[in-house]
Amino acid sequence: MSAEPGTVRPGGRTARVRAAVLRAAGDVLAEHGFAHLDLADVARRAEVGKTTVYRRWGSVTGLVADLLADMAEQSLPREETGTVLGDLRANARLVQRTLADPRQGALFRAVIAAATCDERTAHALRRFYEIRVAEWAPCVEQGVARGELPPGTDAGEVVRAVSAPLYYALLTTGTPPAPAAADRAARAAFAAAVAGVYATP
Amino acid sequence: MSAEPGTVRPGGRTARVRAAVLRAAGDVLAEHGFAHLDLADVARRAEVGKTTVYRRWGSVTGLVADLLADMAEQSLPREETGTVLGDLRANARLVQRTLADPRQGALFRAVIAAATCDERTAHALRRFYEIRVAEWAPCVEQGVARGELPPGTDAGEVVRAVSAPLYYALLTTGTPPAPAAADRAARAAFAAAVAGVYATP
Repeated sequence: MSAEPGTVRPGGRTARVRAAVLRAAGDVLAEHGFAHLDLADVARRAEVGKTTVYRRWGSVTGLVADLLADMAEQSLPREETGTVLGDLRANARLVQRTLADPRQGALFRAVIAAATCDERTAHALRRFYEIRVAEWAPCVEQGVARGELPPGTDAGEVVRAVSAPLYYALLTTGTPPAPAAADRAARAAFAAAVAGVYATP
Repeated sequence: MSAEPGTVRPGGRTARVRAAVLRAAGDVLAEHGFAHLDLADVARRAEVGKTTVYRRWGSVTGLVADLLADMAEQSLPREETGTVLGDLRANARLVQRTLADPRQGALFRAVIAAATCDERTAHALRRFYEIRVAEWAPCVEQGVARGELPPGTDAGEVVRAVSAPLYYALLTTGTPPAPAAADRAARAAFAAAVAGVYATP
């Protein structure tokens, strides 16, 4: 790929190559799953030299780890609605939209499946969720500070409780969650948090 | 395998062959995952003729479907403790013990991973959870009848809500859930049900 002198900032080409390769890797994962991911095929789809891909990512698991790191970087920042329930609902809808999106849903299923048998992917996946939980945890902490939730409420537990039923439905039934399921997930996590289920005594 | 005449009831050999083959299939899934499941290897491990295995199960996915049907048949019946919270806790602990068991936990992860890319396995997995949810749903229905939960509470939703955080933790972190997580899952589902989250208006 070429560009007029001065139009590309330092690092621009590297960033473009990474974006093209990760896009291609995500496409293959979403369409065919982890078992069909192949560096040479990804290079061809991304229109990037095979040597570049091998040198930079080294292996299929290295590529998936970088894809998950990129997904965490690109994820939307949390919303602030002024109430815990409103914030949890916004989080639930974001997760629901992601899992219901054909490409994103298939991508998450493929990566979660890969994590069951590949330790490096499992590590990258854990890291992805740690970043996302940390992004949304303040909505629970602010709710505690406002007196909406009991003191000592574990913010991470509440955020994970919102996601759990949405992922569980997708992984055990294969059916992407509907918007009503997102609202129910948010209301359930909120009710349990209000009841003190996530508070350490 | 031979037996003295008169010591094997009709169907006994067939049942023994099935048990040995499903046991071997479960071992391979738990140890190596779906990608390494091979009918000839299963026949060898089960000490059963290869032809018998091919004729009876036909394919790897046919074998996994029968394994899931057998797991549903063999699953423990629900407990009755006299209260909804007690029953949900018993259910949560059963799920937690299953997922925390090294062989069973690995087996579930392997089958859930396989279901993301194989429609026949996905169908068998859905059927497995339908059977398990139907087994435990009466504890919620009895709770509604006793006035512990609001009328119109969706029993299946409550039972699935108990399992969701335990599976979610295993699949996104790779760490089997601890007994404390089981109690928290039961209390959370109960609190949400009491708050009317699973009741259809």
